[in-house]
Amino acid sequence: MGTNATTSKKIVVIGGGTGTFTVLSGLKTYPLHLTAIVTMADDGGSTGRLRDEFGVLPPGDIRQCLVALSDAPLVLRKLFNHRFDKGELSGHSFGNIFISTLEQVTGSLDKSLDVIADILNIRGRVIPVTLSKVRLMTELKNGKVLEGESVLSNYQLLSRFGIKKIYLTPKAKANPKALQAIKDADVIIVGPGNLYGSLIPNFLVPGVPAALMRSRAKKIFITNLMNKHGHTDDFVVGDYVRAVEDIIGRDDVFDVVLYNTTKPPSSLVERYADEGEPVSLGVSAKNIPARFVGADLLAKRLPTLPKKDLLRRTLIRHDGKKLAKAIMKLINE
Amino acid sequence: MGTNATTSKKIVVIGGGTGTFTVLSGLKTYPLHLTAIVTMADDGGSTGRLRDEFGVLPPGDIRQCLVALSDAPLVLRKLFNHRFDKGELSGHSFGNIFISTLEQVTGSLDKSLDVIADILNIRGRVIPVTLSKVRLMTELKNGKVLEGESVLSNYQLLSRFGIKKIYLTPKAKANPKALQAIKDADVIIVGPGNLYGSLIPNFLVPGVPAALMRSRAKKIFITNLMNKHGHTDDFVVGDYVRAVEDIIGRDDVFDVVLYNTTKPPSSLVERYADEGEPVSLGVSAKNIPARFVGADLLAKRLPTLPKKDLLRRTLIRHDGKKLAKAIMKLINE
Repeated sequence: MGTNATTSKKIVVIGGGTGTFTVLSGLKTYPLHLTAIVTMADDGGSTGRLRDEFGVLPPGDIRQCLVALSDAPLVLRKLFNHRFDKGELSGHSFGNIFISTLEQVTGSLDKSLDVIADILNIRGRVIPVTLSKVRLMTELKNGKVLEGESVLSNYQLLSRFGIKKIYLTPKAKANPKALQAIKDADVIIVGPGNLYGSLIPNFLVPGVPAALMRSRAKKIFITNLMNKHGHTDDFVVGDYVRAVEDIIGRDDVFDVVLYNTTKPPSSLVERYADEGEPVSLGVSAKNIPARFVGADLLAKRLPTLPKKDLLRRTLIRHDGKKLAKAIMKLINE
Repeated sequence: MGTNATTSKKIVVIGGGTGTFTVLSGLKTYPLHLTAIVTMADDGGSTGRLRDEFGVLPPGDIRQCLVALSDAPLVLRKLFNHRFDKGELSGHSFGNIFISTLEQVTGSLDKSLDVIADILNIRGRVIPVTLSKVRLMTELKNGKVLEGESVLSNYQLLSRFGIKKIYLTPKAKANPKALQAIKDADVIIVGPGNLYGSLIPNFLVPGVPAALMRSRAKKIFITNLMNKHGHTDDFVVGDYVRAVEDIIGRDDVFDVVLYNTTKPPSSLVERYADEGEPVSLGVSAKNIPARFVGADLLAKRLPTLPKKDLLRRTLIRHDGKKLAKAIMKLINE
């Protein structure tokens, strides 16, 4: 396939969080038409405080995607990701405050995104999966229902009782722009990302699963590197695909499943043993019609993050460049 | 004088606060090269909180000048002036947070202003009079010294004891860009504005008075509409000029003194009687070499502000268009 055909390829990345940031950052350097469709279920930390105080839509996942796709000078990208570490703004991300304030000033997140896309010189588009103000609800196997996406970080609780069902309330209305982007896509990428926090909430929005199934795009699922206790205990690669397909209601959604084949250093694996273990291919792949493609996707170098952020996040992470290279191979085949 | 000559005229407005905002907003519609030199002594409200928490320079006066000179879409100017009215951000101006965060990210207010000028599409320049972190000190006639510019709003206290002296601490270093702008100016405008809070602090920065005296610019002083109890009790027009010239250390600084000749409606005068009375020309003009020019400068229509802001501010204010017209007459004569 020639360069011209590649140039016009429409790639839609569905997710939210760091995984989607990494995919977008990697793909940005290729001549593609990129669209990120982003979950609107986050309500923790800075995002949660802004939602509670101003009744806005959650800005955090949007901000990460905007920064990933930004071609603005480094200083503006740094500004958007700046996190205050003292005073009354402590814990807030500047970009979150920016997005939420502009939503209040314009009266609409949709309008705000046009203004910000201009300031940040976005290469591509960032589309909230819904503009409805929804909360993620988690029903545990003991019957108890927990409100809020941030509750998902309490993995001890989830481990103890197990997740039975996850849903949005009130009922979300799909963003027509998201449905259109899915329809028009040549390639749709789901993941990597927190299964219940970043990936599944997108498919809990009515209309999104149907649009995905109707779309003639090649559909690629990218599996996480690490399982998460209370969420995905003992999951193998195929279990991730299965979990998303269960929500979508079909077992033949994805054409390709991309997974990492490189073992993380055992010192790091031990360090994060409390949170989860590396995802292995296992045997479940046999029951899924998708083609499974393994590649070295592991980041070797530590990210350049402030020390306090390094301590908070896992150092076992995808390498944006390796991911993008593997995805481009699938796009162009 | 032809249009071409006017086009290239370099106008420097020295001050801060609403008065300078009004002058800049009015002059922006004319083909001039506008520079605002802004006081760095503010430490009240949103600005004070940001100074205290992050050790930044005061953003508030800079923000007002940036918005006045901005040619950006209305939504961005609204965003910069947006004031939060609930939650932990309550009382903060978004623009102040923006400027102060960018100062932290870039490590310098000077660099930040270049970035913001670009985003806000500034027609002209905004230059902090100093980049030193200074506090305004007020020595009362009873010997007591009060720290902070915000103390000036306690006019009962100032009324009771009287202001003896006002100075900056520690010693400020003049911003070379401010000195250069003063040197290069064709016209320099001082005022209107709070005498001790917005005007005089600029001339307390060593080097600024000398640069002003050396500059061959035509120097225009614009007098306030209203006296302020505890600050300028019973002042007539000439007393304002005298007060600024006393700080500069010369009695022949200004070529022209522009003052308002229209009486504010008596209903409004009564309403603000507690805060101060209208400034009249009086007889003091005779002792000052400057030429005194009177004009109708009073705003007839109420500004379009949220009701809560209308209640906080005086409704007796300059009309930006009338001011600009009167100034242009002086520039072109």
